[in-house]
Amino acid sequence: MSEAPGDPVARGDQGGGSGDPVMDVHAGGKISVATKVAVNDRNDLALVYTPGVAQVCMAIHADPSLVHSLTIKRNSVAVVTDGTAVLGLGDIGPAAALPVMEGKAMLFKDFADVDAYPICLDEKDPDKIVDAIVALAPGFGGINLEDISAPRCFEIEGKLRQRLDIPVFHDDQHGTAVVTLAALFNAVRVVHKALADLKVVISGAGAAGVAITRMLQSAGVSDIVVTDSVGIVSSARKNLTAPKQWLAKHTNPRSLDGPIAKAMLGADVFIGVSQPGAITRDDVRNMAPGSIVFAMANPVPEVGPEDVEGLAAVYATGRSDLPNQINNVLCFPGIFRGALDVQATEINEAMKLAAAHAIAEAVPAGDIGPGTVVPSVFHPGLGHTVAARVAEAAVATGVARLAP
Amino acid sequence: MSEAPGDPVARGDQGGGSGDPVMDVHAGGKISVATKVAVNDRNDLALVYTPGVAQVCMAIHADPSLVHSLTIKRNSVAVVTDGTAVLGLGDIGPAAALPVMEGKAMLFKDFADVDAYPICLDEKDPDKIVDAIVALAPGFGGINLEDISAPRCFEIEGKLRQRLDIPVFHDDQHGTAVVTLAALFNAVRVVHKALADLKVVISGAGAAGVAITRMLQSAGVSDIVVTDSVGIVSSARKNLTAPKQWLAKHTNPRSLDGPIAKAMLGADVFIGVSQPGAITRDDVRNMAPGSIVFAMANPVPEVGPEDVEGLAAVYATGRSDLPNQINNVLCFPGIFRGALDVQATEINEAMKLAAAHAIAEAVPAGDIGPGTVVPSVFHPGLGHTVAARVAEAAVATGVARLAP
Repeated sequence: MSEAPGDPVARGDQGGGSGDPVMDVHAGGKISVATKVAVNDRNDLALVYTPGVAQVCMAIHADPSLVHSLTIKRNSVAVVTDGTAVLGLGDIGPAAALPVMEGKAMLFKDFADVDAYPICLDEKDPDKIVDAIVALAPGFGGINLEDISAPRCFEIEGKLRQRLDIPVFHDDQHGTAVVTLAALFNAVRVVHKALADLKVVISGAGAAGVAITRMLQSAGVSDIVVTDSVGIVSSARKNLTAPKQWLAKHTNPRSLDGPIAKAMLGADVFIGVSQPGAITRDDVRNMAPGSIVFAMANPVPEVGPEDVEGLAAVYATGRSDLPNQINNVLCFPGIFRGALDVQATEINEAMKLAAAHAIAEAVPAGDIGPGTVVPSVFHPGLGHTVAARVAEAAVATGVARLAP
Repeated sequence: MSEAPGDPVARGDQGGGSGDPVMDVHAGGKISVATKVAVNDRNDLALVYTPGVAQVCMAIHADPSLVHSLTIKRNSVAVVTDGTAVLGLGDIGPAAALPVMEGKAMLFKDFADVDAYPICLDEKDPDKIVDAIVALAPGFGGINLEDISAPRCFEIEGKLRQRLDIPVFHDDQHGTAVVTLAALFNAVRVVHKALADLKVVISGAGAAGVAITRMLQSAGVSDIVVTDSVGIVSSARKNLTAPKQWLAKHTNPRSLDGPIAKAMLGADVFIGVSQPGAITRDDVRNMAPGSIVFAMANPVPEVGPEDVEGLAAVYATGRSDLPNQINNVLCFPGIFRGALDVQATEINEAMKLAAAHAIAEAVPAGDIGPGTVVPSVFHPGLGHTVAARVAEAAVATGVARLAP
């Protein structure tokens, strides 16, 4: 996948004109800063800069809440990474992660008119990452954490949520969990099952796996078995990390042990946030009738469409070239739009649940089917639909500074 | 100057419509993030985001220098403050400083097409500020420090310059010094004096005073006396801060002591970066014939136009409503534009000197006069003229990664 460093475009000039559409579109970066007010003469300058600006500074100094309305904080989100878990590429560092964060900022703008700016941190120590993000927070209305490796991501997000009064949202956890739940809401309607009765297997005990577990439990799913590269996460295992100890305690109600194949026997739902080959066609065959398979490893799913054919009732992936693309862009623009619109102090479970319902309901009831459990990421107005529901939930749960 | 916090516009809603043009223009902030590529369908998404973006990430991972051409780093500057010395308002904190930093970002864009983003740090410890800026540096092509109190600003800038391989430029120091020197280049032509022969008094021993001293010395001025609120900074004084000890050692060649009035006797140039009332009409009367007075305290100069009338040969201020506005916007957009264009690793003395010459020379020789020692901040193309000279100087001094 890597461009050869000897490639002429990749040599370090301003880029462009290589004939490679991906490299060309990235030359010079994908976002820019725009001004909202013209500065054509001294009067304009005196209005937006000195001396006029001093009046605005002193208004905020007298009433700090005004920073939410009189500055970019009203609409801005920092997209923050340390580059340790970028896409499926691993720990490639903050500079190499920047194109992904720019892409994310583009999607924030295009899908929900949020002004997002990439912050790529050259720091790996979780406490120092927390300190850096707390330090830069005054200018932002929200923090979107991105591509930070587990289990560090849990600690970093937890500490930030304690120290900041703006939403902190690790999209790899919560965005993934929201869109997965949205897809599941519609998938169970296809197979006529109830959430509370499902046996669910989640392959992957990292950021996404843990967050999906919690989200599904919030929504009423009680029988969840999580697996990692060793097998089923259970209390019988030794030397588990803290997040896996939590999983062992709060999942696996039938106390299963062993390989994933054992968990798949009679399962209603498979959710993959792991790697290709995590399950086989035999595993899918061993699921309960009306099985639901969300194989979201990217770009190659845990199990391919050919291996579920004739077996799974619903099959979804992260791919744009297959039906049922479960993609975080269905969630993160709208959820932050909603949080910013009411100056929410956090994004809580109720707001995430509201987002999942809004995404699921974007597919008209009559259209729900095996190949349409989620709307297209280009569904018109989805970001604003999600935002409205999220804002309502923020107000209802008392975390909004403003009425919607 | 402060808006009453009870004002309806200032209450925390989205602002606008207050009838106060300054507050209205600030409602919701003055800058936004724009996308440079359209994302209209799945093909676009695959190009700018996953899976296409992975190719760009891996190219940068293989050759880290590519981050300068394939991302926003090529054209981006962080405008960083801790809010401790905002305009003349003092330590009003990072949130209240944000409108100034947004304004600065606007000017970067309007005057030199630089994408600048405000970073307002909720941190006062210099070492922690340095750590936070080093951490967030990978995504930026330069760091513009702004409104950080002295003497902390010297330590912070010094440490950042050691730790980062991108330009770090404290505008209150160096931008002010560059524009002051530019104005002085033309002012001495008005009065037919040589820089080397000047007796210069600088009122203010903070960030700007120290930087102007160094810059004037680089340009060949040898007799500089600096004063602070106590009086002349001299070796006879006790308990001086480190920067003032440096000044005591490297300025004041005639070993003067006492109040500023003593320094003004026979002085050729007064440069004020302090506060209104620092000198009087009598002090101006006591200067040498053909005196030059730059009274740059903002918004009220050290000495008003009425008090220099009939005495000073050249009078300049920071005000937009008087002739000879010495304003940093003459410098900072162009100097960063030039540094970014050649991927400079720093902004050094030669680049600052080149900028001062370019600004001075923007006033045609025949137009130089008592009221025109600097060009208008709206001088067409000034940012790019300055940039070209700065880029040349960067290449000549070996700090450019690219040819201009």
